[in-house]
Amino acid sequence: MKVAIYQCQSMPGEVAENLERLSRAADEAAAAGADLLLTPEMYLSGYNIGAESARAHAEPRDSASAKAVAELARGNAIAILYGYPELAVGGEVFNSVQLFGPDGTSLAGYRKTHLFGELDRSMFSPSDVGSPVVRLGDWNVGLLICYDVEFPENCRRLALAGADLVLVPTANMVPYDIIGRTIVPARAYENQFFLAYANYCGSEGPIQYCGESIVAAPDGQAVVRAGRTAELIIGEIDKDMVQVAREGNNYLTERRPELYD
Amino acid sequence: MKVAIYQCQSMPGEVAENLERLSRAADEAAAAGADLLLTPEMYLSGYNIGAESARAHAEPRDSASAKAVAELARGNAIAILYGYPELAVGGEVFNSVQLFGPDGTSLAGYRKTHLFGELDRSMFSPSDVGSPVVRLGDWNVGLLICYDVEFPENCRRLALAGADLVLVPTANMVPYDIIGRTIVPARAYENQFFLAYANYCGSEGPIQYCGESIVAAPDGQAVVRAGRTAELIIGEIDKDMVQVAREGNNYLTERRPELYD
Repeated sequence: MKVAIYQCQSMPGEVAENLERLSRAADEAAAAGADLLLTPEMYLSGYNIGAESARAHAEPRDSASAKAVAELARGNAIAILYGYPELAVGGEVFNSVQLFGPDGTSLAGYRKTHLFGELDRSMFSPSDVGSPVVRLGDWNVGLLICYDVEFPENCRRLALAGADLVLVPTANMVPYDIIGRTIVPARAYENQFFLAYANYCGSEGPIQYCGESIVAAPDGQAVVRAGRTAELIIGEIDKDMVQVAREGNNYLTERRPELYD
Repeated sequence: MKVAIYQCQSMPGEVAENLERLSRAADEAAAAGADLLLTPEMYLSGYNIGAESARAHAEPRDSASAKAVAELARGNAIAILYGYPELAVGGEVFNSVQLFGPDGTSLAGYRKTHLFGELDRSMFSPSDVGSPVVRLGDWNVGLLICYDVEFPENCRRLALAGADLVLVPTANMVPYDIIGRTIVPARAYENQFFLAYANYCGSEGPIQYCGESIVAAPDGQAVVRAGRTAELIIGEIDKDMVQVAREGNNYLTERRPELYD
């Protein structure tokens, strides 16, 4: 499978333009043979937009924007995972992602469970529901958002639930470069799965994003890694690498949970 | 506190010479103001020695060799953590470490719980008891051995038990350089504590060790890191860094254990 990450500047509040940019990225990714395209966190609305704007831009999972993304997926025969502010039935605003399959079907939604400081907490309610593991082609896919991945427990839960690929839209800023450079490769290595981490570049208000989106392999190496500026990166991932990694020392079966409490 | 790591070649089977080398390292570390000295895994006997030799060299925790190490600690007023094959009362051989305080008192013992492949399993019984967290000066110290640290659960357990410093003798070989370079810094960062990882260099039979012993800080950076050859490294660690790290985003209190099952 070929995984594409659309590393881009945030365009806060510009939903129509963001859909237009996503359309061009989907065209380009599909033309390069990609099977899956990821955006950064809160891509549709921008991330650092404040509570009022987050609520104003919040949409239900089946909104007109969502339908437009589904149509981009279907039209390009490419799966798309994108971030957006989600308006729940109860009125809460969640920091959410949604995965469309290459036929435009919604395969999964996930709402961020581990909120990052006041920035997240001022805009979003924390979800109490972990990501499902869903089938995409031959892959078992789990979803996390940004800060979630910094907790080893979240990746471990998904690996134990069968995930061999975890997708992580993010909005990771300076000085947290260590997340993309060290923590994400560590998560891939210690769970012996693939992990795609899709970040912004450039700035958004006072925030300077790190870029350096990465597709990390079960051996902890980068299949592909972006630089600090806007870029569509594409990495090919091979399920056999998961099996090969686990045929050696298998971190999942060699755990001793009775010792961890 | 100043932490010294004695990164050295393994001298398999040469217990008396290993005690002599440790004496010189303790002299040097103490002269440089170090408060604590770590050796690699199975330092007293060597690591890659085979089941027969491991059993032949196995000793109880209060053996003559142990008393000699205690005397080195007391004589130099430096705490020492060293690795050795431990003969248990029931006859099992464990891959063990023991920590002596600067007055020569035994502060803790720990037997490896996560055995590494056939190499470990051919020589050792796995322990069913996790490391205690013990007091050393102002620090709460936990112990792990080599492969143990590759499981995020082990470091997390120690952090939640109050450890602000985890000591990890190891015998880490090529091609597993990623452990010292990426996994160990990730463990320090994600638990916001200090971690000292003491490795061999050079070769032992067909094994080529990685060297690159490291003292990693709560920000995931190296306080000090060794190269690929023999070296006594010393890093100064500051408990305030633990508190400062946790005053920002606190990974320990922001966990959501109800979501991890």
